[in-house]
Amino acid sequence: MLSFKKGAEHEVHRQLNRHSDIPLYQQIEQIIKEKILQGEWPAGTKIPSQRKLASIFQVNRSTVTAALDELTAQGFLEGNRGGGTKVANQTWSQLTAGPPLDWTSYVRSGIHRPNSMTVQEINRQEFTEGIIRLGTGELAPELLPYQQMEEILRRAPSDRLMLGYEEAKGSRYTREVLAEHLGRKGVRVSADSILIVSGALQALQLISIGLLKRRAVVLAEKPSYLYSLHVFQSMDMRLCGLPMDGGGLDPSVIPAVKKRHGADLLYTIPSFHNPTGKLMSENRKRELIQMSKRLSLPVIEDDAYGDLRLDGPPSSPLKAMDREGSILYVSTLSKTVSPGLRIGWVAGPEPVIERLADIKMQTDYGSSSLSQWVAAKWLSSGLYDENLSWIKGELRRRRDEALRCLETYCRGIARWEKPSGGFYIWVTFLKPLSLSALFEQALQKNILINPGTLYDKEAKYSIRLSYSYASLPELRYGILTIAELAGKLM
Amino acid sequence: MLSFKKGAEHEVHRQLNRHSDIPLYQQIEQIIKEKILQGEWPAGTKIPSQRKLASIFQVNRSTVTAALDELTAQGFLEGNRGGGTKVANQTWSQLTAGPPLDWTSYVRSGIHRPNSMTVQEINRQEFTEGIIRLGTGELAPELLPYQQMEEILRRAPSDRLMLGYEEAKGSRYTREVLAEHLGRKGVRVSADSILIVSGALQALQLISIGLLKRRAVVLAEKPSYLYSLHVFQSMDMRLCGLPMDGGGLDPSVIPAVKKRHGADLLYTIPSFHNPTGKLMSENRKRELIQMSKRLSLPVIEDDAYGDLRLDGPPSSPLKAMDREGSILYVSTLSKTVSPGLRIGWVAGPEPVIERLADIKMQTDYGSSSLSQWVAAKWLSSGLYDENLSWIKGELRRRRDEALRCLETYCRGIARWEKPSGGFYIWVTFLKPLSLSALFEQALQKNILINPGTLYDKEAKYSIRLSYSYASLPELRYGILTIAELAGKLM
Repeated sequence: MLSFKKGAEHEVHRQLNRHSDIPLYQQIEQIIKEKILQGEWPAGTKIPSQRKLASIFQVNRSTVTAALDELTAQGFLEGNRGGGTKVANQTWSQLTAGPPLDWTSYVRSGIHRPNSMTVQEINRQEFTEGIIRLGTGELAPELLPYQQMEEILRRAPSDRLMLGYEEAKGSRYTREVLAEHLGRKGVRVSADSILIVSGALQALQLISIGLLKRRAVVLAEKPSYLYSLHVFQSMDMRLCGLPMDGGGLDPSVIPAVKKRHGADLLYTIPSFHNPTGKLMSENRKRELIQMSKRLSLPVIEDDAYGDLRLDGPPSSPLKAMDREGSILYVSTLSKTVSPGLRIGWVAGPEPVIERLADIKMQTDYGSSSLSQWVAAKWLSSGLYDENLSWIKGELRRRRDEALRCLETYCRGIARWEKPSGGFYIWVTFLKPLSLSALFEQALQKNILINPGTLYDKEAKYSIRLSYSYASLPELRYGILTIAELAGKLM
Repeated sequence: MLSFKKGAEHEVHRQLNRHSDIPLYQQIEQIIKEKILQGEWPAGTKIPSQRKLASIFQVNRSTVTAALDELTAQGFLEGNRGGGTKVANQTWSQLTAGPPLDWTSYVRSGIHRPNSMTVQEINRQEFTEGIIRLGTGELAPELLPYQQMEEILRRAPSDRLMLGYEEAKGSRYTREVLAEHLGRKGVRVSADSILIVSGALQALQLISIGLLKRRAVVLAEKPSYLYSLHVFQSMDMRLCGLPMDGGGLDPSVIPAVKKRHGADLLYTIPSFHNPTGKLMSENRKRELIQMSKRLSLPVIEDDAYGDLRLDGPPSSPLKAMDREGSILYVSTLSKTVSPGLRIGWVAGPEPVIERLADIKMQTDYGSSSLSQWVAAKWLSSGLYDENLSWIKGELRRRRDEALRCLETYCRGIARWEKPSGGFYIWVTFLKPLSLSALFEQALQKNILINPGTLYDKEAKYSIRLSYSYASLPELRYGILTIAELAGKLM
């Protein structure tokens, strides 16, 4: 049966006209009838439950019942025996013979895996009003540079703006600006070796379909953000975890892992790792480069958080040490300027970049030229650095507050480490507890957390705490509440 | 051996300093050495030929030879026996044992197919200065609305601009504007049933990985633009051609085709088909809808050119007749406003749209919010219609000129039909000739054509002539020259 994704029903959020002469139940009837008649809800679609509909339209359940009864009497809806109400196979649409078109099998059988139920639930809850987002990996709206962006749009000379298709690797102007930007971090590449992508996730998507065979093995830190995605798994590739300690992932175990499971690629977030916040030590970086060479193992370095060092000098990317071209470097403006821009980049050996550019052209014909143009303005004007230093100040305040709250409310029931940059604190409870109960109970108190199991199936007692989104009072209330709930659950 | 894509070598286009005291050969040596030392050209990379390098740097071949000899003597380059020169496996990088990292196998073995050599060659040649593009499926730069875009960026109130992540289906504001836009064409869908994508090609990509199984069969007109892509084939799906006549594709043959080859989806461009320019007749549209219902066969309608009717009243989309939700409607701003915006949309049954939205989130986390915001401004301000009517006037002039030139120069050697909209005229030569020879000889005269074989392997004597890009004098010179060359080749 064709059904909505769990929780997706809130999309039916038309406004009813409460001052109209037409009774509310008839208005609801009309809205649903239109959806059916327009083919938006084809025959067989399981409609949202009465409880859900009542909540969506903000009416009594009896109003919904009246509307559904009417639609059932008219032959638009049917069923109700346990399986819920579904759109009927109307006789008026059956002038030609044949079963109704079965979209369900299409929706269910596509190659790419759906997001996990937890991720879908989180994605949905994030749009709930008044929710406190303690796990969200993005900058809070008040940290997004609306004013500077308006300035750029209104003032920047648009001589370099391109409305046609860009070159396969992206705007040359933007790539030249990016080459300079990377040069300032010690990453020496020319514009020819840079591909502009629509955010770092797309880079992984292109690498997955462009450079790997089915059943390839990708190594990654454990835990890792990568396990919450299906970018490699959907193409039948396997992920294999590498242990971490205080210095980041331990390269010395790679030969044994490779021998046992195979290894075609290594994915790492050396700076302010997602979700643990760890920074790879300089020694470890050197060891990893050596190991990559020794084993002929290409490395994807995800440097999305690299510029967000909150204590001490800037951290240097792995790629700055790479002289053999064994590292594909990926970064983005999403964590420092605006995720809505959807601008990221990949830097690496030129023939590899060309292969990825060819696939990118076949996937979406390149990234928004408007976004590319704006990205170049950000990076070339000094605005990026100015904004970055402000954002780092704000993040530092939030991190310090989160750490203070953890110290106050969670000492004795959990452990964590102080991150020196990025967005995340990895909090592990000291005694077993049900993470799903914690998730649900927190949600009832309007707090959204990211369970550790998204990042490592075995991290059953950890959560990813993010200080990038919640405000200081939200952090205080949120951490206190989580501590209380966890205390009871342990 | 790791090598560049054919023709991609022009990317090494650094400027030499001709006023420097450092001899040119040393400057070239330095540039190449840097690329090697930075890992942009890893060990094993086959470098461009001496002839190519001489042309890239605009120097004598002997200057290149001197630079390469020097680099070979220093151990940076090696080889030359037939296989060309490649980057050596430098001893200084061999402090750790192990073979050099073999990117080649990665570049060659990825799941997604590379673009065909012809498409790659066309993509490259399109950036050659002074080339006349007779096959390009995009608006000429002078038809792109730079002035209006600047106005929007400078003047539009940015209250609806979003810098954070958008909802999974895209900006609600833009989807509401799109729902109205579609309503004006008779396509009645709500914002909930619309997904915003980064151009129409991405919609196909999402459908491919989101709704179909491996080995699924996709029916499409023959010829079709779809055969020039690998969006379905790369996922092991098969394309199967449907014949066309004056009224577009003939739905009556579908049952037999389905029986013989299977059929999981039908892809069609009913309005101003790419590459034939045909408009499906109203009767055929009704027949296709009926057939889709009878066979439970979902249809993707690609309406990229639908607004570009040059003669007569606007053509109505298939989707306007769809009451059962069997049609997934795809369109874009690329052919009417700006391809650089990368904004397209899919409209269809809500649960299908939700599935595609989930995959889109997993692929690139949504389209540029800046582009989505600008798209809404275009469509809601009246600017879209105003600009469209201007573009149609320009296209009409170009089409009429192209038809006049065909009449004058090609009568007796080719046949074609007058398109009533869109960008294309499908020209078929009356006698056999070598298309690849025509392509090459035209290129020598600085004219780029799109061979029919890109759209149908059997269309060995046809070309797709586009009047959207070339200017009137270019159309005249181009068509005359093609006629002369073809006359000699036949």
